[in-house]
Amino acid sequence: MTSISPLAPASFPQMPPIDGVRLSTAAAGIRYPGRTDVLLALLDPGTAVAGVFTRSKCPSAPVDWCRARIKAGSAGALVVNSGNANAFTGKTGRVATELTAQIAANAAGCKAERIFLASTGVIGEPLDATKFATVMEGLVADAAPGGWEAAARAIMTTDTFPKGAAAVVRLPSSPVTICGIAKGAGMIAPDMGTMLSFVFTDAPIAPAVLRKLLHEGVEDTFNAVTIDGDTSTSDTLLAFATGAAAARGVAKITSPSDSRLAAFRKGFNAVLADLAEQVARDGEGARKLVEIVVEGAKSRSSARRIARSIANSPLVKTAIAGEDANWGRVVMAVGKAGEPADRDRLSIWFNGIRVAHKGERDAAYDEAAVSAAMKKPEIALKVALGLGKGRDRVLTCDLTKEYVAINGDYRS
Amino acid sequence: MTSISPLAPASFPQMPPIDGVRLSTAAAGIRYPGRTDVLLALLDPGTAVAGVFTRSKCPSAPVDWCRARIKAGSAGALVVNSGNANAFTGKTGRVATELTAQIAANAAGCKAERIFLASTGVIGEPLDATKFATVMEGLVADAAPGGWEAAARAIMTTDTFPKGAAAVVRLPSSPVTICGIAKGAGMIAPDMGTMLSFVFTDAPIAPAVLRKLLHEGVEDTFNAVTIDGDTSTSDTLLAFATGAAAARGVAKITSPSDSRLAAFRKGFNAVLADLAEQVARDGEGARKLVEIVVEGAKSRSSARRIARSIANSPLVKTAIAGEDANWGRVVMAVGKAGEPADRDRLSIWFNGIRVAHKGERDAAYDEAAVSAAMKKPEIALKVALGLGKGRDRVLTCDLTKEYVAINGDYRS
Repeated sequence: MTSISPLAPASFPQMPPIDGVRLSTAAAGIRYPGRTDVLLALLDPGTAVAGVFTRSKCPSAPVDWCRARIKAGSAGALVVNSGNANAFTGKTGRVATELTAQIAANAAGCKAERIFLASTGVIGEPLDATKFATVMEGLVADAAPGGWEAAARAIMTTDTFPKGAAAVVRLPSSPVTICGIAKGAGMIAPDMGTMLSFVFTDAPIAPAVLRKLLHEGVEDTFNAVTIDGDTSTSDTLLAFATGAAAARGVAKITSPSDSRLAAFRKGFNAVLADLAEQVARDGEGARKLVEIVVEGAKSRSSARRIARSIANSPLVKTAIAGEDANWGRVVMAVGKAGEPADRDRLSIWFNGIRVAHKGERDAAYDEAAVSAAMKKPEIALKVALGLGKGRDRVLTCDLTKEYVAINGDYRS
Repeated sequence: MTSISPLAPASFPQMPPIDGVRLSTAAAGIRYPGRTDVLLALLDPGTAVAGVFTRSKCPSAPVDWCRARIKAGSAGALVVNSGNANAFTGKTGRVATELTAQIAANAAGCKAERIFLASTGVIGEPLDATKFATVMEGLVADAAPGGWEAAARAIMTTDTFPKGAAAVVRLPSSPVTICGIAKGAGMIAPDMGTMLSFVFTDAPIAPAVLRKLLHEGVEDTFNAVTIDGDTSTSDTLLAFATGAAAARGVAKITSPSDSRLAAFRKGFNAVLADLAEQVARDGEGARKLVEIVVEGAKSRSSARRIARSIANSPLVKTAIAGEDANWGRVVMAVGKAGEPADRDRLSIWFNGIRVAHKGERDAAYDEAAVSAAMKKPEIALKVALGLGKGRDRVLTCDLTKEYVAINGDYRS
């Protein structure tokens, strides 16, 4: 139906298997017959887990399920389905999560409390969890190392390409690997661990340390992406550390001050940043990837709020879709953010070309050069407020007629 | 170019002249040659004025001008231009407002401090105020009672129809008249006296009372309308009371506890509400007028915030454009508002049909009936939270491909 986003990476990345993680996928007919819609990740005993979830006051049943079990810090398997979000499904939804976890626990041979669940797709329709029973034995039997692209495809909804990223980190005793997959496309906004993403590593990391890494890492990656300002009821980001590298001599990382964490954090955050950017690149109907940098704000949080105000402005987003360097709308979006700003100190750049300086159109502003710059698929929009040292960055995409077409016709 | 909104009223209303107000319009070539783009309203001596302005931190030069002079409470004339907003124009913009006011003051024979200004159109382009000099003498000479439709047309930008509303209030001694005009279309959001609107009455009302009436009246009218959540740098709502009805025996209203205010307030608020609804009906690309009522919230302000979250959600707005009663997205928008909400108590209605009840799809939900209801041009969306007695109402419109087309191509 929809063609692949013009902002998609040329190909799915090379992603090595992770010791202690086995993947498989199946078509359970959750919503459409014949479409792969279930992902199972089997995790070796001893796997640590940490998670970040939507801040919606109306979360989905799987989010409730995971949140209640994440503190224990231990995971046996992950089950993800696309096609149905199992959100706003009341008691039926809770029963469906319990049944899904029980089906997976029986097949995987672990306790139901160690099964983590995520669902994505239509909201408000009951999820028939018995469909998992028909495929679960096969999923467990087929589970094998690697297979990341198939896994990434199984969790797609309106995504136009599968999203994966990997990093290898050279710890003193042995390298460890980090692999992540994500799905996004619509109903994406910051203020949470956006959309669905799952990151795996064989590094032996205690749950408390993994939690800290994840909460810190998400701030400038997934939480700095917005497609439409709409926060999903299902946003889930889970990180799993199997610890399998311990067998290769990597001592367990149990303290946040462990010196090996600097290198690991770098790789971990790179995977999160890569996945988050891919989500922006696959924004529904997106034709431009837009990076918004705000500097000179009173504080970093002020810069973030102004950047989000710009990133979520329909008028800024449609102007970029129209390849129009309409900095007047950028001023508007700065002004409505409610943060300190002085109109007469504002400067604005599009792809490095200053179009406004100290509150007026830049005298040297060359319309032809700006027009050429706006035709590029990647737009860097920078705003300097001239008030302080606060700086932040947010990623978004343009707002096109295709976004409206995709979302005006989703359920039918 | 753009055809008239299908939600437009059948015709411009009958609007009587207001004693003490004379109107005229001209084509000054502000942006396009040959298009009427200046409105002059001459106001008899003794006219009281009150105003509400954008809360943007980056207001336009005319907003700065008016704000500095509104407290004096006295107006001699109003000059409005379309085609250029004179916003983000730095010192040039300030000079342009001073020059415009001086030109108008000279021609009208009053002090520049009593000239009120508003500009709408493109942001960031210098406004050549000398263009007003070429038309001002003619405007003053031509100024005459009535002519509301021409006045409403002169201030249009992307509006597809002129907006006017009138009311006659029977005070004990004599009727008084209230007439208002407005322009809107895009960059419309609450949190201010939205867009440009000017309301006139011959009632003799002291500035302080007029101010109170305006600030109270705007809350449930203009401040309860959102098209795209984007707050303009130029939003201005001015109310003028010429006091001419005093000659017909209407004693001056100097106290907010004057018993005649009940009737006057009713007429005044009706004019504001009518104009505000017309702004929503002319939302850029709008095909549906959407009324969002939230009840059962913890408080009225909580209900307002949830209603705005729904009204500004691109996913809710595109679903309505697609005639899809996608209440799952309504739940999402409730959840992201950050206000108290209990998923399992939520009920949702589209045009009177309950589609969700206590956190689940309504068992009696008839898809065919809902589909028929969603084809109507007016959609009433009601959300009951079941938590308290807070209730509020917001008006918006759907988000269509035409919105993207209009705004992706505005400057070119």
